[in-house]
Amino acid sequence: MENIFTDEYFMKKAFQEAEIAFDKGEIPVGAIIVIQNKVIARSHNLTELLNDVTAHAEMQSITAAANFLGGKYLKDCTLYVTLEPCQMCAGALYWSQISKIVFGAHDEQRGFTAMGTKLHPKTTVVSGIMAQESAELMLRFFARRRK
Amino acid sequence: MENIFTDEYFMKKAFQEAEIAFDKGEIPVGAIIVIQNKVIARSHNLTELLNDVTAHAEMQSITAAANFLGGKYLKDCTLYVTLEPCQMCAGALYWSQISKIVFGAHDEQRGFTAMGTKLHPKTTVVSGIMAQESAELMLRFFARRRK
Repeated sequence: MENIFTDEYFMKKAFQEAEIAFDKGEIPVGAIIVIQNKVIARSHNLTELLNDVTAHAEMQSITAAANFLGGKYLKDCTLYVTLEPCQMCAGALYWSQISKIVFGAHDEQRGFTAMGTKLHPKTTVVSGIMAQESAELMLRFFARRRK
Repeated sequence: MENIFTDEYFMKKAFQEAEIAFDKGEIPVGAIIVIQNKVIARSHNLTELLNDVTAHAEMQSITAAANFLGGKYLKDCTLYVTLEPCQMCAGALYWSQISKIVFGAHDEQRGFTAMGTKLHPKTTVVSGIMAQESAELMLRFFARRRK
């Protein structure tokens, strides 16, 4: 039997969160956290609504997942996020010791790779899942905002 | 007339927050944010109580200060924090465009300097204010925890 729980399957759910952010006028980034194929957190960027630079999708999902698990370490968890995490979010992921990070589009300017942020040695990274859709959504957002 | 509003004056208030954290069994780090000599946020590390790796003193103060100001950029603000910020907190401070960061003790292992985290070009940094007291409080905390 084919495994339906692929990285693409879960990234679609993160992408749906990014679309919700888009509709609210937020920079369209969405995230979910999964453990044993179960979604335990879902969130999208809310920096505008909350007037808070810390309200990135990833940060909210880390807090929500820890709350769900009753512990602050995200062992055996995977974060799916439509855009490469920034320094802040990668720094939070470092502390969380999350097992796996899957991100969509690269952020050549502010992504943790370009910025040289360290992840926890326990964390593996997969990139490029739904990268094109995620990047296009960002471009549409900024094109709309410039009008 | 002598200016009482020195970096030492405000760092003492951050240190008081670190002492509150110590008494609660939290890693003893305290922070405040000041604008025009007025304290607009005060917080201490709550990662244990909240089961949340994102609940560092600095993160809470950034959120509280933005809430007070009604805007997410911390222009003309100074953060006082007893320990050098980590990657996550420095990453959040980067987004906030805060004017000045004053920290106490260096964190040679996990501080943003050692980790290579980038601050915003608008941000200036002062270090070493009450460094010894802050470092000693950390040492006392970990000595107690080992018992």
